[in-house]
Amino acid sequence: MKLTAEEQAALDAARADTFTTRRPTVDSIEARLFVPTPCLDHGFIRVIDYMGNDAAIVQAARVSYGKGTKSVRGDRGLIRYLMRHRHTTPLEMCELKLHVKLPIFIARQWIRHRTANVNEYSARYSVLDAEFYMPRPQDLAVQATNNRQGRGDVLSPAQAQAVLALLKRDAIGAFDSYNALMDQHQLARELARIGLPLSAYTQWYWKIDLHNLLHFLSLRMDRHAQYEIRVYADAIGQVVADWVPLAWEAFCDYRLGGAFLSKQALAVVRRRLAGEDVVQQDSGLSDREWHELLAVLKT
Amino acid sequence: MKLTAEEQAALDAARADTFTTRRPTVDSIEARLFVPTPCLDHGFIRVIDYMGNDAAIVQAARVSYGKGTKSVRGDRGLIRYLMRHRHTTPLEMCELKLHVKLPIFIARQWIRHRTANVNEYSARYSVLDAEFYMPRPQDLAVQATNNRQGRGDVLSPAQAQAVLALLKRDAIGAFDSYNALMDQHQLARELARIGLPLSAYTQWYWKIDLHNLLHFLSLRMDRHAQYEIRVYADAIGQVVADWVPLAWEAFCDYRLGGAFLSKQALAVVRRRLAGEDVVQQDSGLSDREWHELLAVLKT
Amino acid sequence: MKLTAEEQAALDAARADTFTTRRPTVDSIEARLFVPTPCLDHGFIRVIDYMGNDAAIVQAARVSYGKGTKSVRGDRGLIRYLMRHRHTTPLEMCELKLHVKLPIFIARQWIRHRTANVNEYSARYSVLDAEFYMPRPQDLAVQATNNRQGRGDVLSPAQAQAVLALLKRDAIGAFDSYNALMDQHQLARELARIGLPLSAYTQWYWKIDLHNLLHFLSLRMDRHAQYEIRVYADAIGQVVADWVPLAWEAFCDYRLGGAFLSKQALAVVRRRLAGEDVVQQDSGLSDREWHELLAVLKT
Amino acid sequence: MKLTAEEQAALDAARADTFTTRRPTVDSIEARLFVPTPCLDHGFIRVIDYMGNDAAIVQAARVSYGKGTKSVRGDRGLIRYLMRHRHTTPLEMCELKLHVKLPIFIARQWIRHRTANVNEYSARYSVLDAEFYMPRPQDLAVQATNNRQGRGDVLSPAQAQAVLALLKRDAIGAFDSYNALMDQHQLARELARIGLPLSAYTQWYWKIDLHNLLHFLSLRMDRHAQYEIRVYADAIGQVVADWVPLAWEAFCDYRLGGAFLSKQALAVVRRRLAGEDVVQQDSGLSDREWHELLAVLKT
Repeated sequence: MKLTAEEQAALDAARADTFTTRRPTVDSIEARLFVPTPCLDHGFIRVIDYMGNDAAIVQAARVSYGKGTKSVRGDRGLIRYLMRHRHTTPLEMCELKLHVKLPIFIARQWIRHRTANVNEYSARYSVLDAEFYMPRPQDLAVQATNNRQGRGDVLSPAQAQAVLALLKRDAIGAFDSYNALMDQHQLARELARIGLPLSAYTQWYWKIDLHNLLHFLSLRMDRHAQYEIRVYADAIGQVVADWVPLAWEAFCDYRLGGAFLSKQALAVVRRRLAGEDVVQQDSGLSDREWHELLAVLKT
Repeated sequence: MKLTAEEQAALDAARADTFTTRRPTVDSIEARLFVPTPCLDHGFIRVIDYMGNDAAIVQAARVSYGKGTKSVRGDRGLIRYLMRHRHTTPLEMCELKLHVKLPIFIARQWIRHRTANVNEYSARYSVLDAEFYMPRPQDLAVQATNNRQGRGDVLSPAQAQAVLALLKRDAIGAFDSYNALMDQHQLARELARIGLPLSAYTQWYWKIDLHNLLHFLSLRMDRHAQYEIRVYADAIGQVVADWVPLAWEAFCDYRLGGAFLSKQALAVVRRRLAGEDVVQQDSGLSDREWHELLAVLKT
Repeated sequence: MKLTAEEQAALDAARADTFTTRRPTVDSIEARLFVPTPCLDHGFIRVIDYMGNDAAIVQAARVSYGKGTKSVRGDRGLIRYLMRHRHTTPLEMCELKLHVKLPIFIARQWIRHRTANVNEYSARYSVLDAEFYMPRPQDLAVQATNNRQGRGDVLSPAQAQAVLALLKRDAIGAFDSYNALMDQHQLARELARIGLPLSAYTQWYWKIDLHNLLHFLSLRMDRHAQYEIRVYADAIGQVVADWVPLAWEAFCDYRLGGAFLSKQALAVVRRRLAGEDVVQQDSGLSDREWHELLAVLKT
Repeated sequence: MKLTAEEQAALDAARADTFTTRRPTVDSIEARLFVPTPCLDHGFIRVIDYMGNDAAIVQAARVSYGKGTKSVRGDRGLIRYLMRHRHTTPLEMCELKLHVKLPIFIARQWIRHRTANVNEYSARYSVLDAEFYMPRPQDLAVQATNNRQGRGDVLSPAQAQAVLALLKRDAIGAFDSYNALMDQHQLARELARIGLPLSAYTQWYWKIDLHNLLHFLSLRMDRHAQYEIRVYADAIGQVVADWVPLAWEAFCDYRLGGAFLSKQALAVVRRRLAGEDVVQQDSGLSDREWHELLAVLKT
């Protein structure tokens, strides 16, 4: 990831200004403000603005007149209670605004999260930078055989080289055509862009409340999510951990680190705790569910 | 509207703290922060937090690296362009959080605006204050005859007095019962509250983006809205005018102060501008639409 | 619950008509169409319309899976897979429309589910029927001591009688005033209604997709939900069981009948399965969480 | 647009079945059900299901208006009233489900309408057909000079030929690479697809209520929308005109065929109706707004 001199200057100017406010601030987020965290080869996330902190969750939950916090211990207990019982509306009282640069095929997964505000760079209005995503060799893998939408073994170096050569040649060719269509034929931008690859980078401003952000993270940090969007989700997770550490801890304990057991899986656990030696055949679970349960129970 | 000593102390403490931030601030909103603006007899709105300012709209519209503003004149032009062409996504990049105290019958109209975050004081969990809305005599009016959901002439002083006596007696009685049910019979709060009147006050934290807030205001500042919710909408309008003055000006010019003309109404205007003397009978408009058009055209 | 002769005639007329369609139909829902299922003393739900069935979920899911589905999996297997992996978008392809009559205090809980379409009877425009909710004696209970928002023991018959007398007297008084305000003083309806109790009944049309409906049910059929809204949720659950039996079965197995275990709770289960005798003090769980876990594990 | 024999057989089988229902039906939509309407070179829309009709709008509206409706107003009058006064909730009580095949760059504009249900064909799970959008020569135009996001004059035949040759060569090359990456290198589908062009076709099931559909149409049938999405919007408009003809007529009169006049534009109209000869310089309108107003007034 590389900013132009102009972009860097704008960013530096933004960081140079400080103001006085009565609103809650979070030092570790202030320190990050506007600075890009690189993601993939040309992408980034950067925090543009934030509203609220852990105390603001408590304040809203209590519909209180003051800042709502009596003690950090009290805040922690209430936030954990809210997370455990899925009382999610107080979490909606915090808001995060990001500037994100990302490949279009990832943008298409991301935008499916509807409860968010988005303003995307318009390729009808402006010309896209000639930047496209090329995976690292170690991220190229064959189609998984046990999962129709996943990856299996990593490609051999020779195969990876061949794959990247093909992807690169086509992407460069498509950007050359894009520029030729506009420069030589004056073709309207909204048409010239239709030949660009899904690996081309786009950008947007994205704003979302904490509850919906945690839902996004629980889906996109998951190992079933495509690797490339997980890179972004992990980077945002680091921001959230800095921003609202008590909510993040509760999220890790009550979402990320936990597991949902189906009615049948619970029955197996109960039988095993009662000393019974359950096997898959009489578990009521499919073979796949059985192995998923073993993985959860680490047994 | 009157705060308890404890509420006032919490509020004063919140106002006393100031912090340093890199985020955009708006002086006139900082000055207002946390202070209630009275609405009706016991209600209020107060600003708890805000995200963004006029420049943040421009910054998002430009998907820019810096603060996005080149000049105030440029910002004004762009914001007016966005408002005129209903490019509303950049407006979603500003967010406002309010604490509102309001009668339940107004809360029921308000909550119909779905694209917002709400956390309401729970009467299952806590006891409601014995506060209920009593209209001022000048706000008591007979049922409108020309509009099934509006008010007509103001009641005579004698009638107003009789009406208020009745409303007051019932409301006081209902709160007396509410307390008796809990204190004497230990009835669960979630049941004791079912006899309270719709005029009882509730409270919530309410958070909404600027685009959806302006939509709320365009409907709830309208003369067809019930007077009691207009009081709140007008108070919030004042906050918005202070917060994002360029967006507010554009909203007044392109929404509040303008009018939508139907296909038939436009045809009438065109004929009249061409010198024709159109009458309702050959206008294609119903009698009511005809008078609405005359009112818009002030002719 | 009692319909007027006019309402019953309208309902009978609606049921008498049948039409031919190419759309999927569900016999057990056709049999129910328009007929009210009573809820509480004066309320009901009735199915007005529905879109889709179990097969429609599979049909929508296979657009997404497209040509990848070469072997025909059973609808049941696919629906269970979708439910287990929270692939919820195909579930959104079914839609249910209900007419609901319910007390206002329940309507206020219900409306918090934002992803739905609602059109409510307007008390600004029309006069409300003189119907209000009176709990049955066996549903009157004291405030729970171990749960700030629940009910404890049932009231004694004598206390129940006293409570109901108070609630009834106030409600009748409020409706008398309501009518007097309109009839004797011609007060506008939008003002006359402000003294009505939260136990008064309102009505609405409510339309929601299956995914969001199941989310509603998972929260409102839960034992932490207020009894009065559970009555409605249970009635709707019966409709869903008839309408999309495969989706309902999967929902029962993967949501209602299952349980989420936190990171700490999972650790306890793993230790116990490994033969360790864990006690609360070294479980990492609070006392309350410990007892919740024991209840889930039935040990 | 061409279906495979297998697709055509599935479609014919779906059309062959008919059922009996108590739900409202619309003959002209039943006649269309499942049949694709071609859009662009390989795309289509086809109606999969619908809920409600004009009468269902009135039915929902009258719950809200309840007993207030004593004289029977025609459905048409009520629907026009609802549309004129933006009482949009009854319109939400109708729902349409479509299967759409469309180029990815159009899908990216379309998906920005958030209040809808979508299930898209997954290129992680399945292989995309080798179909991409090639504009007709008459749809190729230079960048507009007076509008940064529009098209100007049509290209000369020679230029159009050159442009199409370039677009076609790149698209064919990208699909060749796509297949080679999967077949020769076993690359995971989720990676192989990143080089495909934005002109590649995707498919989805899309379900939306009538209110939000009309909002979509008002934006996407507009002459400022990109031509390629207008083709789809126009095709859907035809479906709506058949499905709910009264709502469609009201939409044409009160939305499509009307115009919003800003505060300043209204002032100009008033002055001109009063006989004043207003010129742009003292109109309060920018040059662009002035010409837009003249176009609206056709003077």
